[in-house]
Amino acid sequence: MAPDSRDNADAPQVAKRILLGEPLSTEKANEQLLPKRMALPIFASDALSSVAYGPQEMLLTLGLGGLAFLTFAPWVAAAVVLLLVVIVLSYRKLIQAYPSGGGDYEVASKNLGEIPGVVVASALLVDYILTVSVSIASGVDNIISAVPQLNPWRVELAVGFVILIVVVNLRGVREASTFFAIPTYIFVGSVGVMIITGFVQVLLGHPPVAESSHYEMQGEHLADAAVILLVLRAFSSGCSALTGVEAVSNGVQAFRIPKIGNAQKTLAMMGGIAILLFSGLTALGLITRVHYAENPCNLVGFDCRLPQQSLMAQIASAVFGNGSLPFFIIQAATAAVLLLAANTAFNGFPLLGAVLARDGYAPKALNTRGDRLVFSNGMILLGIAAVGVLVVFQANLTNLIQLYIIGVFVSFSLGQLGMVRHWRRMIRDAREKSPEEASADRRTARTGLVINSLGASMTIAVLVIVTITKFTHGAWMVFLAIPVLALLMAGVKRYYRDVEHEIAVNDTTHFGSEGDMAIVLVNRLQKPVIKAIDYAIAARHEKTVALHVAANPEDGVQLQKDWQHHRIPIPLVIVESPFRHYAAPVEAYIKKYRAKHGPAVVTVYLPQYIVGHWWESILHNRRARRMANQLMLIHGVTITLVPWLLDSSELIYGRRSRPVPGQQRAGRPVVLYADAASAHSRRAQRPAGPPEQD
Amino acid sequence: MAPDSRDNADAPQVAKRILLGEPLSTEKANEQLLPKRMALPIFASDALSSVAYGPQEMLLTLGLGGLAFLTFAPWVAAAVVLLLVVIVLSYRKLIQAYPSGGGDYEVASKNLGEIPGVVVASALLVDYILTVSVSIASGVDNIISAVPQLNPWRVELAVGFVILIVVVNLRGVREASTFFAIPTYIFVGSVGVMIITGFVQVLLGHPPVAESSHYEMQGEHLADAAVILLVLRAFSSGCSALTGVEAVSNGVQAFRIPKIGNAQKTLAMMGGIAILLFSGLTALGLITRVHYAENPCNLVGFDCRLPQQSLMAQIASAVFGNGSLPFFIIQAATAAVLLLAANTAFNGFPLLGAVLARDGYAPKALNTRGDRLVFSNGMILLGIAAVGVLVVFQANLTNLIQLYIIGVFVSFSLGQLGMVRHWRRMIRDAREKSPEEASADRRTARTGLVINSLGASMTIAVLVIVTITKFTHGAWMVFLAIPVLALLMAGVKRYYRDVEHEIAVNDTTHFGSEGDMAIVLVNRLQKPVIKAIDYAIAARHEKTVALHVAANPEDGVQLQKDWQHHRIPIPLVIVESPFRHYAAPVEAYIKKYRAKHGPAVVTVYLPQYIVGHWWESILHNRRARRMANQLMLIHGVTITLVPWLLDSSELIYGRRSRPVPGQQRAGRPVVLYADAASAHSRRAQRPAGPPEQD
Repeated sequence: MAPDSRDNADAPQVAKRILLGEPLSTEKANEQLLPKRMALPIFASDALSSVAYGPQEMLLTLGLGGLAFLTFAPWVAAAVVLLLVVIVLSYRKLIQAYPSGGGDYEVASKNLGEIPGVVVASALLVDYILTVSVSIASGVDNIISAVPQLNPWRVELAVGFVILIVVVNLRGVREASTFFAIPTYIFVGSVGVMIITGFVQVLLGHPPVAESSHYEMQGEHLADAAVILLVLRAFSSGCSALTGVEAVSNGVQAFRIPKIGNAQKTLAMMGGIAILLFSGLTALGLITRVHYAENPCNLVGFDCRLPQQSLMAQIASAVFGNGSLPFFIIQAATAAVLLLAANTAFNGFPLLGAVLARDGYAPKALNTRGDRLVFSNGMILLGIAAVGVLVVFQANLTNLIQLYIIGVFVSFSLGQLGMVRHWRRMIRDAREKSPEEASADRRTARTGLVINSLGASMTIAVLVIVTITKFTHGAWMVFLAIPVLALLMAGVKRYYRDVEHEIAVNDTTHFGSEGDMAIVLVNRLQKPVIKAIDYAIAARHEKTVALHVAANPEDGVQLQKDWQHHRIPIPLVIVESPFRHYAAPVEAYIKKYRAKHGPAVVTVYLPQYIVGHWWESILHNRRARRMANQLMLIHGVTITLVPWLLDSSELIYGRRSRPVPGQQRAGRPVVLYADAASAHSRRAQRPAGPPEQD
Repeated sequence: MAPDSRDNADAPQVAKRILLGEPLSTEKANEQLLPKRMALPIFASDALSSVAYGPQEMLLTLGLGGLAFLTFAPWVAAAVVLLLVVIVLSYRKLIQAYPSGGGDYEVASKNLGEIPGVVVASALLVDYILTVSVSIASGVDNIISAVPQLNPWRVELAVGFVILIVVVNLRGVREASTFFAIPTYIFVGSVGVMIITGFVQVLLGHPPVAESSHYEMQGEHLADAAVILLVLRAFSSGCSALTGVEAVSNGVQAFRIPKIGNAQKTLAMMGGIAILLFSGLTALGLITRVHYAENPCNLVGFDCRLPQQSLMAQIASAVFGNGSLPFFIIQAATAAVLLLAANTAFNGFPLLGAVLARDGYAPKALNTRGDRLVFSNGMILLGIAAVGVLVVFQANLTNLIQLYIIGVFVSFSLGQLGMVRHWRRMIRDAREKSPEEASADRRTARTGLVINSLGASMTIAVLVIVTITKFTHGAWMVFLAIPVLALLMAGVKRYYRDVEHEIAVNDTTHFGSEGDMAIVLVNRLQKPVIKAIDYAIAARHEKTVALHVAANPEDGVQLQKDWQHHRIPIPLVIVESPFRHYAAPVEAYIKKYRAKHGPAVVTVYLPQYIVGHWWESILHNRRARRMANQLMLIHGVTITLVPWLLDSSELIYGRRSRPVPGQQRAGRPVVLYADAASAHSRRAQRPAGPPEQD
């Protein structure tokens, strides 16, 4: 049941097939669903990989106050872990109540109304873009930590990886998951081994020591209030390790049955692993005394023209030795999982985009599945946005982190608030039900209410902290972007609603058009024009004329001669155009015709070149396109495009309008658009009839 | 005789009128011609303004060897002046022989063949881009010399000026010339006064001294061969003062009658002024002992984080005092004339583009005059290219100069060679004519041959020098760009020729299409679809069906209900599409129809939304456009676009498809595309007839 290949005949078809694979039928959508062992790496790579930068940025921020501040680190880390536990529990509840995949957006819009809904959607879209940017920036950082020679190509590497991920994702979710599962498991395994090895070394009495522990750090002198702010800011940076938890809730529909249970289990598994890795890495960072500075020139003794090694790289080289095989495995796995974490966003962003498009908040094109059953437009959009952010921020992780997690906590908070509202409504509704049903419902709702109330209050508190500590460090950009996006969405919604209303059929709509005349626009007498005339004649309009708009009088004279020489069977009208306009004279002619012959629907025939290369369209059709756009503004006029397939189009479409030499038979009129093969096949089906011409 | 305003109804119409002024008729082209006093500033501003950077770059290059090398400067300057005289004389001859405005391109292609022709054209196109870049970079340099605070916005200023010049030029050549004449004359006048004042100060015994004369310059130690190379390189840089001489030869057709005489006089005038300014500035630069270094950090005692003042600014401040009124006048005039010199290229590039398009070497769109009689597309193209170059080279004059003048001397050389060939042919042809005629011709040809042979040998020699001295300094990019462009042009030519041949009508072309059926594609039943059905019915095809491609079966069921409810008078066919393809099922249906009913030309009706804002097109028509592109590949199929003007289109086009509320009369069927006003006007013209509906 292969699809008709001719239908897919877009221009870059061949390249598309090679990159993306064969198209898939809608029925196959079910087979594309994910088992847990595949869903974990797909949806959890973001949350897990964020331990690669979360502890690092937390220690970096504390270090701004000097080495003494690192004593706060265990407490800050404990707060982050506590928050993670609460968030995972909250999202288990959310998945249970809203398994359709809309996640926080659905919860907020259903329970809190339209505005909170689009705010959450905007926050999530912004955050998906930043997830890609931050993950890739950190991934490139870890690659450069292992291969410092690549430092000059930081931005180019980052952009290249985005493009790679877009291509992989355009192939579809299943094949992507196979590709992504292995590095995620290697990452978790190898970092786990590293943490255990590190602790064993501590127990054996020779704790690992980081190279940077020798560099003295110059801290700023801070007032008491500033100390609190700095600790809170370190907490905010540490919270970047929490990002990606929501990914599972947006992807429940991609799980195998039972979807909810599998999604909840995956979420819990992910939470557990994330806590172990986060705590372990923070502890090892403190034990090995990694000194990591925002401005490497503040590290006394460090040549600050060189790139700083990432926390992960420093721990790995302290535990296993710099340049050892395990060091490179850790770095490769970290880089791979970070780059692939960007993939989480390429699952979430297009899905959210499609949901928004379905609800009318985004262009409908985002809800169109491509050949490979994925929402291609959303993926491409996300890729472009991420490349833009990476180029503007020069793939600098510490600057990008400042923008990150605001969006996450906006959507966390509104989602949790929505859940609180949801459970309260459920408790209220339970009163009207039968006792047995009600008590079960009430029990679910009560535990949900407790958990999500805790989640809401904690995430709101964190949102406030993050806002205060990061606003002036660049987060204002996110605070600008979210309402702008939200307003855009609300605008799109209103627009679609208005148009829907405008074009709705009502009972006063009747039929009544009359009259039927055709104008074939002729520039020079060439085969495409002949074909258009031929078709216009075949359509047997009440009246058919050829119209030439003469910007140069000589052209008109030449055309007149050609017309007579070839004995074209319809009249030729020539109108002059001193202003080099092409549509105005046509409109004037139509007005005159209608004044004389009464109203008529006018069909304007325009030859249209079909070409085989993208660049050919620069060389053709420009005037025809402009004409068509202008003529469509004249009332009662339709445009009929008569395609002419240039030879070059055969390269791609396997057909052309020009008869193939040698297939012309003497005495038989040449049919311009003849397709010999299909004419034969039809003839075979129809044993008798008039001589064929199509 | 105002043009029908409705015809110009492009979307950004209002803004276009404000920026560009009212459209002009072709007849007005003659009135747009230039008197000499206006042609001089327009076509000579490039050549004249180049004295602002020519002497500076010449002295800078010599200075690379140390201050002692400046003693070579008078000799190098003398060589440049001599070359300028020869080139001016050569171009007077070229104008005489080829006044049509094709310049070197025309001469080379007519006399040397196609390949030299396109090479010259490519060289000229590259050079027009560099003229804009170099002139604007130097202009911004001179602005920053007067107002050093602007230094951080060097690139932004440069890009802003390009955009300004593009807008001014899109308004058309006449208004541009008025705008440009004044600064050019002020420049020539004020620099002239400065040179005289400087020499008077020398005669009075207190010669002006430049501020930078106190800075010691560190020269490289050079071997003898390197000395020669350095002097030749300084000569190459000085030759940048020669650029722009060819501009007049490309613009002869813009002169008033007698075109040739006026163009020659303008050229001579320009040459004389250029020689005076060039010699004067070089002399004053040496007298005031201006020290100008490629790397300002080589100036001992100069704070090299600051911008160096341009040669012009240093001389002006030596002669008149830094910060004096005349200093600012000189700087303002220099900057203005340099920025306006870029305008020369905005005359030359689009004209050359149009000539190339006419000859089939460039896309035809370059030969389309805009509303204001100028070749708008060429201007926009040049603007984009110049902005690109300025951004890539960060508006750094010394780096840009390295790329410059290669193109000029490629076209100079080939143009002069072509002229030599031309005169030789003329002498040969003269032998076959009557004695009197022949002797006059021969005399002209002989002087021409002598002058252009001299020109050819000198320009070729300079081309060799320039190539040797500048190739490794960046000129290789130009050497790459010229053949690439030339190949592109040759390719475009061949392409157009092939297509021309492919679509030419020959005697075997006959008419023969038969059959006529219409398919109205229906997604949901809305007014635009009703309008399409209405028109399809009015066209009275042999058979008309509505076709719905159902990706979701439910949609089909709903449509069926609506169809019956509204009693649509044509049959509805629903086909399923499991692969979410829209074109393949239509093709299958057409095949089936043809198998049953015989061959037929099939007209597919597609509603097309006409919108009022550019962003609306993101929200509409995407599937329709894709459909149309795919269906046009099916043989024997034409696409009829039935426009539906959304309310928003009224903003721009003053009309819409929805009947205006209140204008509906009871009992009269609602005509969807009714335009009440024009219907009334037509009714007034036709006293009797059937009830109107259009």
